[in-house]
Formats: sequence, C-alpha cells, structure tokens
Amino acid sequence: MAMVCLSDFEAYAKKYLPKIAWDFFAAGADDCSTRDENILAYKRIRFRPRILRDVSMLDIRTKLLGTEISFPVGIAPTGFHQLAWPDGEKSTARAAKAMDICYIASTYSTCTLEEISAAAPGGFRWFQLYTYRNRAVSQRLVQRAEALGFQGLVLTADLPYTGKRRDDVRNGFRLPPHMKLKNLEGAFEVCTMSLLDPSVTWNDIYWLRSLTHLPIIIKGILTKEDAELAVRHGVQGIVVSNHGGRQLDGGPATVDALAEVVEAVQGRVEVYLDGGIRKGSDVLKALALGAKCVFVGRPALWGLAYRGEEGLQDVLRILQDEFRLSMALAGCASVSEIGRHLVQLSRL
Amino acid sequence: MAMVCLSDFEAYAKKYLPKIAWDFFAAGADDCSTRDENILAYKRIRFRPRILRDVSMLDIRTKLLGTEISFPVGIAPTGFHQLAWPDGEKSTARAAKAMDICYIASTYSTCTLEEISAAAPGGFRWFQLYTYRNRAVSQRLVQRAEALGFQGLVLTADLPYTGKRRDDVRNGFRLPPHMKLKNLEGAFEVCTMSLLDPSVTWNDIYWLRSLTHLPIIIKGILTKEDAELAVRHGVQGIVVSNHGGRQLDGGPATVDALAEVVEAVQGRVEVYLDGGIRKGSDVLKALALGAKCVFVGRPALWGLAYRGEEGLQDVLRILQDEFRLSMALAGCASVSEIGRHLVQLSRL
Amino acid sequence: MAMVCLSDFEAYAKKYLPKIAWDFFAAGADDCSTRDENILAYKRIRFRPRILRDVSMLDIRTKLLGTEISFPVGIAPTGFHQLAWPDGEKSTARAAKAMDICYIASTYSTCTLEEISAAAPGGFRWFQLYTYRNRAVSQRLVQRAEALGFQGLVLTADLPYTGKRRDDVRNGFRLPPHMKLKNLEGAFEVCTMSLLDPSVTWNDIYWLRSLTHLPIIIKGILTKEDAELAVRHGVQGIVVSNHGGRQLDGGPATVDALAEVVEAVQGRVEVYLDGGIRKGSDVLKALALGAKCVFVGRPALWGLAYRGEEGLQDVLRILQDEFRLSMALAGCASVSEIGRHLVQLSRL
Amino acid sequence: MAMVCLSDFEAYAKKYLPKIAWDFFAAGADDCSTRDENILAYKRIRFRPRILRDVSMLDIRTKLLGTEISFPVGIAPTGFHQLAWPDGEKSTARAAKAMDICYIASTYSTCTLEEISAAAPGGFRWFQLYTYRNRAVSQRLVQRAEALGFQGLVLTADLPYTGKRRDDVRNGFRLPPHMKLKNLEGAFEVCTMSLLDPSVTWNDIYWLRSLTHLPIIIKGILTKEDAELAVRHGVQGIVVSNHGGRQLDGGPATVDALAEVVEAVQGRVEVYLDGGIRKGSDVLKALALGAKCVFVGRPALWGLAYRGEEGLQDVLRILQDEFRLSMALAGCASVSEIGRHLVQLSRL
Repeated sequence: MAMVCLSDFEAYAKKYLPKIAWDFFAAGADDCSTRDENILAYKRIRFRPRILRDVSMLDIRTKLLGTEISFPVGIAPTGFHQLAWPDGEKSTARAAKAMDICYIASTYSTCTLEEISAAAPGGFRWFQLYTYRNRAVSQRLVQRAEALGFQGLVLTADLPYTGKRRDDVRNGFRLPPHMKLKNLEGAFEVCTMSLLDPSVTWNDIYWLRSLTHLPIIIKGILTKEDAELAVRHGVQGIVVSNHGGRQLDGGPATVDALAEVVEAVQGRVEVYLDGGIRKGSDVLKALALGAKCVFVGRPALWGLAYRGEEGLQDVLRILQDEFRLSMALAGCASVSEIGRHLVQLSRL
Repeated sequence: MAMVCLSDFEAYAKKYLPKIAWDFFAAGADDCSTRDENILAYKRIRFRPRILRDVSMLDIRTKLLGTEISFPVGIAPTGFHQLAWPDGEKSTARAAKAMDICYIASTYSTCTLEEISAAAPGGFRWFQLYTYRNRAVSQRLVQRAEALGFQGLVLTADLPYTGKRRDDVRNGFRLPPHMKLKNLEGAFEVCTMSLLDPSVTWNDIYWLRSLTHLPIIIKGILTKEDAELAVRHGVQGIVVSNHGGRQLDGGPATVDALAEVVEAVQGRVEVYLDGGIRKGSDVLKALALGAKCVFVGRPALWGLAYRGEEGLQDVLRILQDEFRLSMALAGCASVSEIGRHLVQLSRL
Repeated sequence: MAMVCLSDFEAYAKKYLPKIAWDFFAAGADDCSTRDENILAYKRIRFRPRILRDVSMLDIRTKLLGTEISFPVGIAPTGFHQLAWPDGEKSTARAAKAMDICYIASTYSTCTLEEISAAAPGGFRWFQLYTYRNRAVSQRLVQRAEALGFQGLVLTADLPYTGKRRDDVRNGFRLPPHMKLKNLEGAFEVCTMSLLDPSVTWNDIYWLRSLTHLPIIIKGILTKEDAELAVRHGVQGIVVSNHGGRQLDGGPATVDALAEVVEAVQGRVEVYLDGGIRKGSDVLKALALGAKCVFVGRPALWGLAYRGEEGLQDVLRILQDEFRLSMALAGCASVSEIGRHLVQLSRL
Repeated sequence: MAMVCLSDFEAYAKKYLPKIAWDFFAAGADDCSTRDENILAYKRIRFRPRILRDVSMLDIRTKLLGTEISFPVGIAPTGFHQLAWPDGEKSTARAAKAMDICYIASTYSTCTLEEISAAAPGGFRWFQLYTYRNRAVSQRLVQRAEALGFQGLVLTADLPYTGKRRDDVRNGFRLPPHMKLKNLEGAFEVCTMSLLDPSVTWNDIYWLRSLTHLPIIIKGILTKEDAELAVRHGVQGIVVSNHGGRQLDGGPATVDALAEVVEAVQGRVEVYLDGGIRKGSDVLKALALGAKCVFVGRPALWGLAYRGEEGLQDVLRILQDEFRLSMALAGCASVSEIGRHLVQLSRL
C-alpha cells in the first residue's frame, strides 16, 4: 500500500500497533470532542488563494527563537515512543535531525535525555518539563537538558492532574515491564502522575527562570488572559495546545484559540500550536493565523510505528511537500508572505 | 465490563431492564428532539480553561438554600424507581445520603415518603409536588413531607397535562400490578394523571405558601418572563427544566435557557437545572452559566438499574470525580471560582 | 401496529401503496431539498413555553374567513385521491366534514365536484383552481364550484409548468386507465398539464374576480413582494406554499418564508401555510409565526391509504389532539393567545 | 435505466469507466473538501421565487463576449477526453456545436486543435492555455488556435504546480500508451507538468496580449483582489474557478467566491464560473449571483462516457431543460430578468 498522506500512516498504526498502545496514543479525554474538534476546526477555515505570483523559488525555511529549521513543523512532546518502535525516542531524534527540524523531547521518554542526545548529536531539541512536587527532580532534569545542549525548555502547564481517558481506564493502561520512564529512574521510589504538583502557579515561572539560561516556552495556553500573563512572566514562547484533547474535554480547538492568543501577544513572543495538524494545508492555515511553527504529536507516532526513524521521516517529508505545495498554490513564495489575509473563517 | 462513565450505565440499563421500563425512562415527547437537544447543547459550549492556578486543594462543596452538599449535583425527581430496582426509592435515598447530596423525591414514588425517610434518616431531601384538582390531597402530601423533615418543596409546573410519549402509548405503559403510587394510596379512588389540575396559576404559589414553612422551588421554567414571575411570587428557587424533554417537544435545551433565566433572576433566588447532564464537565458548564446546582434524572435510574444503592453511588461518584477534575483542569480550585468567564457559546 | 403519530401512517402508506402511487405522492422536484427543508425547518424553531397559566379550558376552534373550524388545520389540495383509496375524494370530503374543518378540493380530483358535494353535504370546502389557456374551462369550473356551495377559490399560482419530479419521470407516471380527471372530462380533447397557461399574471386576478363572488385565496406565495401584490390585487387570503417541494427545488421552507409574508401583509388578509406539517407542535409553530391555519397534503393521503375516510379522520384526530396538548403545554388556553412571543428562531 | 438527471450519468460513468480513469476525473486535492464544497454550497443558497409573471415565452439565450449561445452553460476545459470516449475531444466539439454553446478546449486534449476544428467546423470555441517555461510553446499554441478560428483564450492561472490528488498518486495515473497530448507533440522531448512555469505573474498577461488579437479570459480567480488585478491588466473575462477542487484544498466553493468577484468587477468584464454545477437550478443560482455563464467539467465527461457525442448532448439538454424550467418557476421569462433579488444566502 502506498503511503500518500498522513491518514495512511494512521491506518497502518491502528492496524499493527497493539490495541493498548494504539488506544493510549489515540485517547482523548471523556467524549473526545476536543480531540476531534482539533481536526474539524481546520475544515471551517477557508483559504483566499492568490494567483499569478512568482512561486518558482519556494522558501519554506523559518526560525524558531533564532534557530533555522527546514519548514515550520516540529515534533510535539509525546511519551513512550518505545510503544511505537523499539528504538523509541532515539529514532525520533534521528529523524528530526535528518529533517532539520525541532524535536521537543518529553520527560516521559522511554530513552534518557543522554541517549537521545547521543543518537543525534547536534540536533535541534527542546526539552518538555512537568513540575514535580519535589522541585529538586525538576531542577535536575533542567540541568541535565541544558548540559546536553537542549536549546529550550517547554513547560507543560495544562496537566495539574491527568485527564480522564476512558479507554486507558478500561485497558488498565500502564507501560510494559521492559519499558521505563528512564529520565526519572532513581528520582522517585514509585513514579506516578500523582507526583506532579497541582499547586504550580505563574510564580513558578520565576523559579524555573532562576534554574536555567535556556528560553522558556509555555505549553497549554488557550486564552488571551493567560497569553498576557505568559508574556508578563517573561516566557520566550507559547504553545497554543489542549494536550491533543487529552486533558479538559470541551475546550476549544487549538486553531480556534490561536487568533485570540496571537492578538493578545502582539508579537512580543513567538506563538506555536499543536493539535489536529494532518495536512500541509493545515500548517499553512495555522501560520496564516499567526503561528510561527506547529508541532505534530500523533502523526509522528504513526510514522515511528510504520518504520521507526524512516517512517517518521516519511511523515515529515509528506507534510513538508504538502506545505510547500499549499504555500505555492495559495500564492506565497516564502513563509514571510503568509499572513492573515490568506484565510477567512467560515460563518460556521 | 468496567463502568467508566455514565454511558456505560446507560448501556447496561438498556440491555437488562425490561423494554417497557427502559422505554418509559428513556421516553421523550413526540420526536424526542428536546430530549436529545438537552444533551447536544452542551457540545456547543466551549470552555475557556485557565492554567497555572493553584489547584492543589479542590473544594467542590456548595450549598443548596443554605444546606451544604458534597458537590453541586442532586437527584432529580423521577417516578417509579421500583421499575429499576426492587427497593426503589429507599435505595435512592440511601445512596443520596451516603453521597451527601440532595434527593428530590417524586410524588410518584413507589415507596411512601415515610419509607423513604426511614431508609436514610437525616438525609437531605426535597419533596416534589403536583397540584391536584383535589387540593386537599396536595395539602396532605405537603404536611407529611414537612413533618418527615423534607427541607424543600419542588412544585412541578410544566405538567398541566402529560406529554405525548409515543413509546409509552405503543407499549400501553402502566405500572406492574405489584407496584403502587404509594404516596397517593387512599387519596383517590382511581389514581391517574387526569387528577392533575390544569387550572393552576401563579396565585397557587400563595396557596402553597400558606400550607408550609418550607422553601418553595418551582420546576419547569424556561423563559425570563416566568423567571421574573417566580421571583415576584416569592419562590426560593427555580429549576430550569423541560421535564427531560418529556412534555413539550420543541422547547429549548435547558442549558440554552439557563443564561436567560439567570440574567432575569439577578441573584434574587437560586437557579438550578436538570436535563442532559452526562459528564462532570456538563456540571461545570451549567455552573459557569449560573446554575447553583444541577440534578440528574435518567443517570440516577441507570445507576439503580445496575446495582441499586451501590450502582447509584457509582454513578454519583463518577460524576463527582469528573466534576472535580474538570474544575481543576479549567483552573478553578473551588466552586466559588466558577463563573461566566469560563465558557463561550459557540456560534453554532 | 398502533397508529400513534403521523409517521406511522406514512410508514403504512409506503408499505402498502403501489410504488408508482407512493412515489407520485412523495415526489419532490429535483433533489427534493425543498420538500425535505419543509420538515427540517420546524426543528430549527424553538418554543418559549410559559407555565402556570390556567389551561383547564382549551379552545382550539378558529375561523377561516369567518367560517368556524374545529382547529386550525385543513386539507390541502392534492390530486388523484383514488390512487390512495377507491372512494377517492368522496372519502376525503366525508372525513373533513366529520372533523369540522376545511377541505380544499383539487381540480385534479378523481371525483367530480358534484360527487364531492353529494358525499358530504354542507361541508366546508374551497375549490382549488388552475388557469387554463382556454379560460372558458376555468370559468366553468368556478361556476360549478360556486353553484355547489364551495365557499372559496384557491388559485394555484406556482405551476406555470410542472416541476421535474425524477421518480415520476422514471416511473412514467400516469393515472391508471380506470381513473379520470373527472372535473375536466369533456373540457379538453386530451387533458394534460400543457393546457395550463404560463402567461397568467396578476391581472388575471381581476378576471377571476369578475367571475365569482367567492373569496379568492392565492396559493404559492413565498416573498414579501408577492404578498404585497396579492393584497393590492384584492385577494382574501394567501397560502404560503412551495407546492410541497414539487415545483422549484431550492426555494425556502414554507415556515421560513412565513414570517416575511405575515409581516408584509400586516393583517390585511389572512395568511395560511402548507408544507411539512407532521405534528401538532408544527401547527402551533406556524400559528405563532402568524399563520391563521395550516393545510396538510401528504398526511391526508396517508390517512386515506390507511383506511379511507376513517383513516383520514384518525390522522386529523391525532393532529388535533397533539395541537391541543402542545398549546396547553406552551401555556395557551386558546388560539387567540398564540403569538410571536411563543417561539424563537434558532441561530441555525 | 432512464437518464433523468446528471447524477444518473455520474453513476453510469463510475460503473463503466476503468477505475483509473474514473479516479482521475473525480479526483480532488487532498481531502477533496473544496471539490465537495463546490456542490454543497449551492444547497445553502435559497431562491426567492416570484409568481404570476408571464413566463409563456422563455428566452434562455445569452451572449459570451458578444457571441450568442443557446443557454448560459458551456464546457469547461478538462483533459484527456479519450479516457472517456474513443473519439475524445472530437465528440465534445460536435456535441457543443450541436447544442450551440461554447466549448473551451484544453491544451491537454487527446486530439489536436486541428482535429477538434475539423470535427465541428464553425463551432464556438475557446482555447485553454497554460504558460510553459518555454514560452515559444505557448506562443505556437496561441497562434494555432487563433488561426483555426478559436474565439478566445482562457489562461489557467491556478496551476503553477499540480495539486496533490491522492488517488492519482496511488494509481500511478498516466495516460495509456495509445493516447497522446497531441497538441504538444514535438514541442517537448518529454512532456510533463514540470514544464509549466511557476514564475508567471500578471505581467505575463501583457506578453500574452502581444501574441494575439483574441480576447483573454483568466481562469482561477477566487478573490476580489485578483479580480481587480485582472481587470486592470486588461482581460476580457474571468472564470471564478478552483480547478474543480483539484488544486488547493481548503479554498472556497466557487459559488461562494462569486459574489465577491462580481462586486469587485462592477461589470467591467464578464464573470463566469465553473465547479459544482449539477442541476439547472445551480445555473440559475450562479446567474442570480452575477455570473454571465457557467461551465461544466465532470458532467461533460460523464456524458461522453455514456455515449460520446450523443451522451454529452443528453447531459446538456437535461441541463438546458432544467435551467429553462427553473427560470420559469422562479418567475423569470428571460436571462435578463435574473438578478441578485432572486436568491438569499442562508445563514449557514
């Protein structure tokens, strides 16, 4: 079967992954309505394509906080890559480097930060962070990431508690015994979600700031109010995210929340987005609405599940080709020509 | 099979209840469009969740007319609980007391008020009332309820006649011979719906007021005009309700009517809601739109059908856990932090 | 099988009528989108029901141009009733008289006007009229109808040509040889639709006026402009109609066009509606939007197909009961209390 | 099976064409959402039909840039007609001439321009043009077309690169060996899409202008900005088109973009439309919104697939009959009476 678009990889992963792993990756909270809205929302956005513009030279490169990437897509932080492919996050790191994009490694990786670094030396990577009740654990992770050359810290801010994902409850989901949350080994006697600190507030941004020189990106913002607070607390970037619809069901699609956040931020920090990206034209829509870059979660896992590093590269290359083509067909020769004029929100 | 969410109990009840009982509980009027809208309307409401607020201590307790309850959900008045479980309303009363919430016992209970009281002494209960042509019958019920320690009277105001529920007509629904409308035994020679008085008007609130010191809550209001009249006639509470879609088909979903009623009332009396609550996040949405508490009807019956008192507690505990989690994920540490800012109504 | 609602009669007719007859009655033009919209449009209208109003005495009688009817529903003109029941329009006339409502007999009846009159002497009837190229034919029909005691003339104005009903084309629909367009026997050598005059204009209202003392009702108006013209040309009533979706596909649902027509007319003439009425609450919605009465087409045919005169009475009695109940549940004790305040149009 | 409407021809073509050919004709880009929107958008437009206007004489003729055609429908440029019928574009040309309408012959015809001309001498034809990197190729095509009596040049402006049509990728679509892009034979060594010039800009209109005296029509405009540019660069006509949804997925339905373009153009040039026309009433809607004429692509191919020249005439005759009937039922006696007043856009 030809792998032509991201849905082909999804179908493959659904067919060949163990059900418990597929369910875990696919899960949304409650009725999964926010997870599904993330995708549906793109269909309500219409392009206003322009014609007869010279699109013979297409430049899809852009920069994330000053670092150039080959196109405005990165890999969102997701856990447990060994569930998808034996080499786990090492494969992810290699694919991201090969594609010259940014990979946000999750705290809940099944490889250590050190293994990830060694797998793809010099790759552009950020590290995703939770805040533990025991702040020393978080501190040590930050220091390891900085020492290993990670170039940014992504603080996940929408998980004071874990969302209710019905299939995971039904399946009694847990990691198979031969996989570990390797980054946390030794940090806790037992390692569960309940170690997360639900008392975190904006002041903890200052604490995080004091630990590191790395830029801080905050992930999980969906309102203008929180966007304003993020800017005021000195973050360098915002990821508009609803955690793939896995946390609070009933929240907005990320692309629906994007415009509000972008308007509030007024260019003071970079704004990114994750959730629902399935085609190159989705990337173009998000950029038209003000995102500097988008990140893909589940599609990256489908790529891994297909053929590890190579499969993930296939996924990324398809997205890249589709994005380039969409950009050209919309009449833009480079990322800098993409703007709000390119889309209209349907009255739906 | 794991019972993870309320739909699991619904599926169980549909499978194991006698068809005639399931149909009676499930029935809506005519095409059931209002019944279904009650549920669909929640999907059109989007949260605006806030992040990085200290949600380590979560207080979901609230008060109904001054009485504290463990979370803002109560049991709506529904009839004939013995159709769902042999012990009928006695089980309901026990579960409600165990969960520390308010149970509105229906006039059409298959246990007497006295049995209900004795089953769960000291429980927080209101009594639901119809107005009979023979006012003495209503008066006696009020006096019994007050004497038994019921703490409020809920006057059902949307049933001058019974709605047309097609399946009940087809099934020739009637109570099995071994079940009785026990609260009305001896009150009438034959006991049918036609004993209800369709001439009731707002003035009858004064009559009811004259019978009792209990607070009067009026159930069935869907417009600002009637909300204003309710306040002017001295009620203590309003239940925004369309009788689970069993009366006038084509009326609004209760959560759609809620904002209008809340705005008209301006805090002068408490406003509650029933209809369509299926998840903890539905409770949160109703509270964000101004409800002080919501009541569940059919889900309580599904819980009874599953395992009587225990099954109902399971249902309530799931709702409670989901509500607590939704509140936290939306950034609220207590019920008092829930407000209109937490939701936006979709343009749909 | 119990016949509980109009859909039950529809299912019966679909099952037992010859396919060619069912298809003819069911047909809409082209994609049938207007036919289906007629029904769907009611679902977008929401009641604003009022409570605690004395609805012990319910008066559903109303008047059509001064003649009292038992409730605001009449029988729309449809052709070829013998396709549904051997006695054809004679049964229709008897059922209408028994129910004390208005029956608009179609020119394309399979019984003569004389037979219809004789079948139910003294019944309240209007006669539906087309305009033929040969005006003498129309004139003779008008004179016969007036002489027979018909009390109104309904001029169908939306059929300069017959709409394209795909199933009729596929089926090669034509009347079985033993049925005749009896009212036109002898009038034409061959009797086809092409005898209709597509050059008719508003001036022909004056011509029709000159032929008769009967009130003239014009059927097929969907815009305020034509409503204004109708009033100016001296008609006594308007039927907002799209011919059951059988003429121009893509036009508005009649209940969607109703408000515009009512507003234009400003009470100067009575406004009626046909199309899409399937429940008593649909009647209530149409009246709330300003219709004086509605007419049912296909449901009457289903009733005939079920059991002739009795079946049609069953259909009408169900509609009557449902209308009475809906009116009461919406808080109205009589037709005169129904008004625009009773509904809101959904934003859909 | 009777061929009653265009969907009948679609069903036939889907059943009898080789899958690879059907897929090629049916293909849309990516998720095909724009392709499908082209059709769905018509369903959101409602007529405001007028009655009692003299529609006895119906004149559906109109003019394209001064040339009279039998009704406002033409044949859009589509490639590879031999995939549908052995005689290919020769049959198309004959059918178009027989129906007295305009046929826009595609550069990617499987017959030469000379063969097309010879097949139907004197037919009203335009020639559709791409801009090649090698401008001499385009120039020669223009000169051949002009010499052969083609009366207009249609510059396709929305194909700097070919859209991603998943089925074509899966099928490895290419022309069968016995079919050729005959108009380009000898022009290139290998003839692929990559010969198209993506650097084309508005200035190339001047270049094209310098080559020919024929009117220039630009195809692929979807915004008022580009419409204004087209007028300023001296084109004679605009085709509002999204290339049948085969280029940028996510763009607007053509009939949704039409009003914006018509308003911008203000009558300075003629505006046409292609995409989604499936019924005569769709034509009427497009004309009501300001199109001078519409063009059909896939329906023409279905007609060819059915029975070549005759089948295409069947399709066109059905459209013509449906258009005439719709116009009459909407109350217009001639094309000149069609206007914006005839439709309202639904709030959906």
